[in-house]
Amino acid sequence: MSQRIVLASGNAGKLREFNAMLADLGIEFVRQSEFGVQDADETGLTFVENALIKARNAAQHTGMPAMADDSGIVVDALGGAPGLYSARYAGEHGDDAANNAKLLQALQDVPDAQRTARFYCCIVYLRHAEDQLPIIAEASWEGRILHSLSGANGFGYDPLFYVPTHGCSSAELPPEEKNRISHRGQALRKLHELLEKAG
Amino acid sequence: MSQRIVLASGNAGKLREFNAMLADLGIEFVRQSEFGVQDADETGLTFVENALIKARNAAQHTGMPAMADDSGIVVDALGGAPGLYSARYAGEHGDDAANNAKLLQALQDVPDAQRTARFYCCIVYLRHAEDQLPIIAEASWEGRILHSLSGANGFGYDPLFYVPTHGCSSAELPPEEKNRISHRGQALRKLHELLEKAG
Repeated sequence: MSQRIVLASGNAGKLREFNAMLADLGIEFVRQSEFGVQDADETGLTFVENALIKARNAAQHTGMPAMADDSGIVVDALGGAPGLYSARYAGEHGDDAANNAKLLQALQDVPDAQRTARFYCCIVYLRHAEDQLPIIAEASWEGRILHSLSGANGFGYDPLFYVPTHGCSSAELPPEEKNRISHRGQALRKLHELLEKAG
Repeated sequence: MSQRIVLASGNAGKLREFNAMLADLGIEFVRQSEFGVQDADETGLTFVENALIKARNAAQHTGMPAMADDSGIVVDALGGAPGLYSARYAGEHGDDAANNAKLLQALQDVPDAQRTARFYCCIVYLRHAEDQLPIIAEASWEGRILHSLSGANGFGYDPLFYVPTHGCSSAELPPEEKNRISHRGQALRKLHELLEKAG
């Protein structure tokens, strides 16, 4: 495979991560914003449906193959919330700080043993907008929610996500290490395997 | 795990296959028709989206965990058709005979080497109707389309699907052997693994 694929995201960090992970397959990612594609409405009820909606929107508007991911943090003590709505947990106009504050508030009386959580990521690849057989790769990253923010790397819920294997928050991990072990890093490795198999 | 799961299908053969494959996990399947659940509209654009629509419909109407599969035959010379529309290839009221006749007609001038095809199956499991993290298992079964019907077992496109590993059509395979190697059999084995891992 040697081709350009639209990434249904405007995030420069994500673009770098996707390019770094899949460059050896001859794939070059281009962000959908470079084609003037607007974000799709994320109306799905599962991560995989949202990822498909985003990838299909990008493929439809560009006529190119498209890839999209959807991810979030799943907190056991909150019955899986914020989950699909992680980015909008504190409202459509909330930012990382507001989301983290809301999560801390929701868990304020919850002891450590019950603060288990995982980051989850689903990546889908559509060869074209009508592709009925998307390649789907998913992965989880287990941890627990801290009692206060810690660390300055990463974004989103990283300062609140304690990584037991490393004894620190995911915002305290060096970016390369985080990309290696994170939900998105793991999902990208699975996707790499599946793309190689698909030929 | 020890529980009853609604199967979003009215097919007795499918019920037997699901029960046989997952009984050792303590799962007992009940068909949605026993709860009076009507079939959902399959409005998805991919197999996985259709399977999710069907499982969610069953979970919503019963309040129970639900499983659904969506499957079809993907013919390379037809750009992947009939694919998602395999069951309705000859129209909403067409039967297996009409579908097979239409497929033979569509491929009448296509030589053997270009008659490659695969059966594909996607099975999803939703713990409840709002489950954002379905368990997804998928599998393909490679073969090619014969020039005429052969064999009396199975259903659907089985009499036209040549299985190179066995030198016969899938309708000539003994049912146990077909269940072992088929797209659905393989997907059920993957699902078994995933359910064991999920605990």
